[in-house]
Amino acid sequence: MTAKIARFLEEVRPATPCVVVDLDVVRDNYMGLRHWLPLAQVYYAVKANPAPEIIRMLVGLGSSFDVASRGEVDLCLENGARADNISFGNTIKKQSDIAYAYSKGVRLYAFDSEAELEKLAESAPGSRVFCRILMTCDGAEWPLSRKFGCEIEMAKDLLVKARELGMDPYGVSFHVGSQQTDLNQWDIAVGKAAMLFTALNEAGIDLKMMNLGGGFPAKYRTDIPAVERYADAVMHAMTNHFGNALPAMIIEPGRSLVGDAGVLEAEVVLISKKSYDEDVRWVYLDIGKFGGLAETMDEAIKYRIQTPRDGEETAPVVLAGPTCDSADILYEKAGYEMPVTLKVGDKVRILSTGAYTTSYSAVNFNGFAPLKAYFI
Amino acid sequence: MTAKIARFLEEVRPATPCVVVDLDVVRDNYMGLRHWLPLAQVYYAVKANPAPEIIRMLVGLGSSFDVASRGEVDLCLENGARADNISFGNTIKKQSDIAYAYSKGVRLYAFDSEAELEKLAESAPGSRVFCRILMTCDGAEWPLSRKFGCEIEMAKDLLVKARELGMDPYGVSFHVGSQQTDLNQWDIAVGKAAMLFTALNEAGIDLKMMNLGGGFPAKYRTDIPAVERYADAVMHAMTNHFGNALPAMIIEPGRSLVGDAGVLEAEVVLISKKSYDEDVRWVYLDIGKFGGLAETMDEAIKYRIQTPRDGEETAPVVLAGPTCDSADILYEKAGYEMPVTLKVGDKVRILSTGAYTTSYSAVNFNGFAPLKAYFI
Repeated sequence: MTAKIARFLEEVRPATPCVVVDLDVVRDNYMGLRHWLPLAQVYYAVKANPAPEIIRMLVGLGSSFDVASRGEVDLCLENGARADNISFGNTIKKQSDIAYAYSKGVRLYAFDSEAELEKLAESAPGSRVFCRILMTCDGAEWPLSRKFGCEIEMAKDLLVKARELGMDPYGVSFHVGSQQTDLNQWDIAVGKAAMLFTALNEAGIDLKMMNLGGGFPAKYRTDIPAVERYADAVMHAMTNHFGNALPAMIIEPGRSLVGDAGVLEAEVVLISKKSYDEDVRWVYLDIGKFGGLAETMDEAIKYRIQTPRDGEETAPVVLAGPTCDSADILYEKAGYEMPVTLKVGDKVRILSTGAYTTSYSAVNFNGFAPLKAYFI
Repeated sequence: MTAKIARFLEEVRPATPCVVVDLDVVRDNYMGLRHWLPLAQVYYAVKANPAPEIIRMLVGLGSSFDVASRGEVDLCLENGARADNISFGNTIKKQSDIAYAYSKGVRLYAFDSEAELEKLAESAPGSRVFCRILMTCDGAEWPLSRKFGCEIEMAKDLLVKARELGMDPYGVSFHVGSQQTDLNQWDIAVGKAAMLFTALNEAGIDLKMMNLGGGFPAKYRTDIPAVERYADAVMHAMTNHFGNALPAMIIEPGRSLVGDAGVLEAEVVLISKKSYDEDVRWVYLDIGKFGGLAETMDEAIKYRIQTPRDGEETAPVVLAGPTCDSADILYEKAGYEMPVTLKVGDKVRILSTGAYTTSYSAVNFNGFAPLKAYFI
């Protein structure tokens, strides 16, 4: 909670629920990454928070952009990004969307399968392509599935095929999992990717770029290592596996740039108990899983929550959203406690909600408007 | 898949993803419920599909409406519903939203806690109120949590208190869980509610209404009993526990009215394998968990999916959405198979997607537009 956000909430008193993002924090986070990882080019993962205000500021700071869709290509271009600073990082693209991005000048594309490579060869001829390899990393709070990436052996064949199809086999990407707190995972991943550089070198292909993906965390309920320790882990992994023949490096931070910049203010709508025998209070807020807090799915992301009565005696609560959906529960097992004096109408502040909130919000679920956001 | 929807998809060829809802099916489902449960007043659960086209048609048929929010109050009124045909069924309401609904003429409200009852007494004085009791039913496909309702003993005290506060203690509600396929659950639930009628009668309060909630299913992957068997189960439960002194009955169908009326057309964006050792194909569609198929959460709702190559040899698939989110997987464990000849660009049709799709859709996640819907 920055002084700027606190002042805004006190002076403007916006209707709840809303999220307020302090752009100075985004700027500081960006500059911090640049400072600690000067060799890496930053491609902001637009999906984390696609606000034009954020895109424009990052354009001004010299950032590049990792986009997930044709819509995000347009968003970046409309807000001042140059096409050659855009990476179309989604491995699942419609042929027509590839053609669209190519027509706008985008020349850097991700893929992880033969079918996608063939689409790229047809609609983005000669472009730089990088192959995403499969990681199954431990330590990430947001579940990493097998949805993206292919095994090393297949990646090798696909990059060879990319050359045959007239593409520029440019590099390799991986992702260690969002909100990754185990620094050792970068060494494992870079080591795996480096093997691919070697194998392709033997096939006469000189990969030029290592895309280290995202995964750097925001601060939720548990402590996280500082950004310099992440930078250190990444650079150690790179020098460990590549010596001083370092390829170009790309990072795709999303959560770590914007997460901690946002504070979500919500109102306590109801506090109740289910029976006389139970001590646990149910606290219902005017924001829930379908209003922007989708990452509470399976209680994965555990936000810090401030109340106006912090410091007083606390007791266990279940936290839930305002909709008629029985699945709209935020935290039931994660052990949240709140002051016993908490009252209906109190405003609570949910911290580090600058990433993966506004854009996850449902259009109109149960008749509730999408999450409103302010960028200051 | 009705002939009308098939013709629309063939003639209009709308861009995918989109959902097409056949209003005739909604009408037939409504008339079927009226026919088989003539004693019950139907309050359509607007949240299932809040399209004005559906509201207007149901107004014309004489339906009443169960709303979850101030936004849904307005939606119903703007589309011709009368305020005295609206039940504000959410047990979690802001004081200001209660006052708003009251000012518009809404006089029927749900509650399940003392704090909510006090809000109602202040902002909706003299209104009819019904208390939701807690059920923990087996047999529902969409998870029923303890989010709504209170235990019987507390409900009794709250209804007595309602009278003390000048409200009209009107009845009891419960919900057996959405997509409930165990018909016996209604008997258990009605039996529990009937005990409350008796207990309150002894306290000098004559409850007049039993709200049987929703829970009637749509047809997903498994067979479901016909509507008349549900009607039969409900009426048997009512006569079993109330004899011929039946209270007024309310049902709140959502899914069972609109679910089967909708077909979602989507495109196969990519088909791939992760390695040479694995046989399973990953099939990526242009719709996923965040584009409208939120009910695939934990693979709870299992939609039937048609492909243009049905009838040919099939093999196992994992089905996933188009976003860069690793959690955007539809079915990985549910054992879906698709034709081995399925190709990128094929259109697939996801059946029974008229309920809980459009309104769950995210505003702009990953830069993808919300789900488009047509009502024909």
